[in-house]
Amino acid sequence: MDDTLQQTPYKSTMVVIKVGGSAGIDYDALCDDLAALWTAGQRLVLVHGGSGETNKLAEVLGHPPRFVTSPSGYTSRYTDRRTLEIFEMVYCGTANKGLVERLQQRNVNALGLSGLDGRLLQGRRKAAIRIIEGGRQKILRDDWTGTIERVNATLLHTLLDDEYLPVIAPLACGAQGEALNVDGDRAAAAIAVALGAQVLLLLSNIPGLLRDFPDEASLIRHVPKTEIDEYLPYAQGRMKKKLLGAGEAIAQGVQRVVIGDARVSGCVSRALEGTGTVIM
Amino acid sequence: MDDTLQQTPYKSTMVVIKVGGSAGIDYDALCDDLAALWTAGQRLVLVHGGSGETNKLAEVLGHPPRFVTSPSGYTSRYTDRRTLEIFEMVYCGTANKGLVERLQQRNVNALGLSGLDGRLLQGRRKAAIRIIEGGRQKILRDDWTGTIERVNATLLHTLLDDEYLPVIAPLACGAQGEALNVDGDRAAAAIAVALGAQVLLLLSNIPGLLRDFPDEASLIRHVPKTEIDEYLPYAQGRMKKKLLGAGEAIAQGVQRVVIGDARVSGCVSRALEGTGTVIM
Repeated sequence: MDDTLQQTPYKSTMVVIKVGGSAGIDYDALCDDLAALWTAGQRLVLVHGGSGETNKLAEVLGHPPRFVTSPSGYTSRYTDRRTLEIFEMVYCGTANKGLVERLQQRNVNALGLSGLDGRLLQGRRKAAIRIIEGGRQKILRDDWTGTIERVNATLLHTLLDDEYLPVIAPLACGAQGEALNVDGDRAAAAIAVALGAQVLLLLSNIPGLLRDFPDEASLIRHVPKTEIDEYLPYAQGRMKKKLLGAGEAIAQGVQRVVIGDARVSGCVSRALEGTGTVIM
Repeated sequence: MDDTLQQTPYKSTMVVIKVGGSAGIDYDALCDDLAALWTAGQRLVLVHGGSGETNKLAEVLGHPPRFVTSPSGYTSRYTDRRTLEIFEMVYCGTANKGLVERLQQRNVNALGLSGLDGRLLQGRRKAAIRIIEGGRQKILRDDWTGTIERVNATLLHTLLDDEYLPVIAPLACGAQGEALNVDGDRAAAAIAVALGAQVLLLLSNIPGLLRDFPDEASLIRHVPKTEIDEYLPYAQGRMKKKLLGAGEAIAQGVQRVVIGDARVSGCVSRALEGTGTVIM
């Protein structure tokens, strides 16, 4: 299963990592691992979450989160304008700068950006979204979410060539220049494709795709890239978007996607070694 | 008074602008003006505040702001670790991304960064600060503020050469990689010096230095650069730091500093034309 990494010298590979924002993730251990890899010459781009902290802040600010489900079963955060601001406070504020600071403390010259900055991620707004509520379809408006249509790979190459580690908050810049909340896993997939990355790691607070959720012993260790759709029925909640992102990445040339666990020390190295659900 | 701009062709000048974060500033009008100048070929760097919103958020989050005064009379925000997080939420979140979004909506490819990112602003932490409280000196610890020692001008030149307008939140990266709250006016001054900018504009919700604060009719229109110290007694509150920043900029080669009003439309153009307190 390690053919990809064995074939390509370690230092020349590009690895894009998405780390989630749910409870249980040890960001200090994550940054220890990232710093060791970076110092050894591994080229990395980090995309991060912030969902747990966003939910907490939204509650305290009296604007509690609302999650909606699409007719095809994907769950996402309903993002009205106030939610977008709260999202920015956490994702662009504490989450992004917390990671940049941890990396700087480990002598890695990290540079935090959102997809809005320099039109790093150009997206299309879904101004009206179709949701299922109480068994019926509804249309929601005033939603500031979107899908990614284009990645400014030139900007990322410039930063990487100058030895900055990009740390990216999943916002996008819409066609009218508006800020959009986009899915972090799919943002990481789009970035991996645009950079021609060999490997995409989707790390969160779960060991990978589980055959019998939430039984962690039921981890599916390998998904052949031609059979992703057949494994979709096992995906619960946010795992659906991870498989979707994995499929998008693989279809566009990324050689290997690993859905792995960010709660353990050395989580990036372990996922690179194939711990988790490997899709290739 | 317009000698500087008349001597140098408009497009080749570099202008650094600090815009405050107090009530009364029209950010849409500001961005209209910035976009017109940028589109005309003016090279710009924007540094922003966020003090007012930070105070409001800190109150709502149950961690109200605390301002302290140094023995020499300068006021600053006491920044414990929780305050630093709230500061990041506003400065790196809503304030920075709000400006980037407004500029993107006006077809300016703005790129938001904090001084922590890519070690854009390298600073020195003042871990223990001396303050005056109730007429007596005290030492405060657990403070995450600092002063700027070095600017990563290479990063800014790279971004400007690639036609990104840098929008900078005044944090710095300490010697240990830690995030620091730094003064925005002095950050803008340090950036202006590092870039060899001809002009530094310090815009806020006041017309300039007032001889008889808060009487706006008492605006001092001109301060000779050799006499800044003699005008210090007129400076109230935050104006002291603006004069300090202006002095630092002028002493290190910036030709002209204008302390001007950000509440009026065309505020950047007006300040460039010499409206406000001009120091040269």
